[in-house]
Amino acid sequence: MSPIASGAETTIRIVLRWRDMDMLGHVNQAVYHELLEEGRGALLASLGDVRGFPFVLARVELDYRHEVRHADGHVDVRTFVQRVGRTSITVGQELTLPGGTLAAAGVSVLVAWDREARSARPLSDAERSALGAA
Amino acid sequence: MSPIASGAETTIRIVLRWRDMDMLGHVNQAVYHELLEEGRGALLASLGDVRGFPFVLARVELDYRHEVRHADGHVDVRTFVQRVGRTSITVGQELTLPGGTLAAAGVSVLVAWDREARSARPLSDAERSALGAA
Amino acid sequence: MSPIASGAETTIRIVLRWRDMDMLGHVNQAVYHELLEEGRGALLASLGDVRGFPFVLARVELDYRHEVRHADGHVDVRTFVQRVGRTSITVGQELTLPGGTLAAAGVSVLVAWDREARSARPLSDAERSALGAA
Amino acid sequence: MSPIASGAETTIRIVLRWRDMDMLGHVNQAVYHELLEEGRGALLASLGDVRGFPFVLARVELDYRHEVRHADGHVDVRTFVQRVGRTSITVGQELTLPGGTLAAAGVSVLVAWDREARSARPLSDAERSALGAA
Repeated sequence: MSPIASGAETTIRIVLRWRDMDMLGHVNQAVYHELLEEGRGALLASLGDVRGFPFVLARVELDYRHEVRHADGHVDVRTFVQRVGRTSITVGQELTLPGGTLAAAGVSVLVAWDREARSARPLSDAERSALGAA
Repeated sequence: MSPIASGAETTIRIVLRWRDMDMLGHVNQAVYHELLEEGRGALLASLGDVRGFPFVLARVELDYRHEVRHADGHVDVRTFVQRVGRTSITVGQELTLPGGTLAAAGVSVLVAWDREARSARPLSDAERSALGAA
Repeated sequence: MSPIASGAETTIRIVLRWRDMDMLGHVNQAVYHELLEEGRGALLASLGDVRGFPFVLARVELDYRHEVRHADGHVDVRTFVQRVGRTSITVGQELTLPGGTLAAAGVSVLVAWDREARSARPLSDAERSALGAA
Repeated sequence: MSPIASGAETTIRIVLRWRDMDMLGHVNQAVYHELLEEGRGALLASLGDVRGFPFVLARVELDYRHEVRHADGHVDVRTFVQRVGRTSITVGQELTLPGGTLAAAGVSVLVAWDREARSARPLSDAERSALGAA
């Protein structure tokens, strides 16, 4: 049973690379965050032009539930909007092995980013609507 | 004012690399986790042989407070034991810019790892003592 | 017109990740070598069990012909055996953009590796045959 | 005996990270290129403002002579100008283990880059002079 998403949601498949592995023979802990970034990017891309839709990460929580090995071949990353705030959104993410085993689950807070000012900016109504805010 | 550490603590300086940067011109969010891994490794290395002291990451929480740019040159990573459990330890971590600005702060839960069984194992008394358990 | 391969050959498609990009807004020069490693791994995997077929890289030459940007989405990596020696093989590699533009081309020399001895070992007849040696 | 440099030269020390290692327990082949990039950046930084002095890599040749393991702690990267052309420079690089063992040696061709035009540009006289052209 998966968490209920209150808005936009997307799942992508990511093929693992040799470079994702570390000395312990499994996907390195930092690489999970590269994979989750792909999921967040796919979610935002599904809502509009990513380059015109810049967000930076403000917070991440991640539970590592199961190691991912090269022989797993790929993982699926599900990303779903949990909350839409004034300048930020909270997304839930799950990283799943081919057989369905949950490898990691977490939450990220993304802040809308003004590239020129290098600071947070309020979400536009169009963005809030695309993200599925009630 | 920094959090109070209840046990072992260490701070390391890490020189930034060009490859740490991403398209937004700052250290990529996943790279913070590589840097924090260095801090955790240094903490464990200060307690004994790292290869004989294997831990895997079970959970991470990280707040990104300030971007890190290449011109910053380096960051300092402080890692301190917050709690010692039966099979795991909780460490706090802070990543600081040269001028003292806090760039990120978080908490990690490390599980003692049995390489052969590929599963969690209880901490030994020697490990608990080294980690500063009361 | 592509180089003539004298033996085994394989082409894989690799989806780009945000983390592959650097501050200049294109795939970082070191990442090409991660992508080429995927191609070499795929070639070896097509010949048998990769874990039982370990090689390490002895030399690489790479010409960067065209930048790869995130908007390109993916690249194709073609890897083909050029020469089979006593303890090493030489493979050619091409990295191509979706529209067919050659982004990079190079040559790698792989040495058969004895994991226990951590040194080079002679190729077996079975390996030489799989690699397409005349 | 080291190659003779005909112009500018610099050596930097780089501390290894856990993430530099791969499943074979040594620094991954692609990571060497991240480390060499640090050396090239240091050479260019020694000549002036790096942001105003952009180069992209056009070609790399690298011989892997000896594995680098985490226990080595750090490597030294020496970078020296070998040739200054109209739009490009050729630099030699050596990556050395703490005990002096040569771990890798290679050559890179860097092309002066026009950020706006995203294309090669001629080196200025000031750049040629800084690089040590005869």
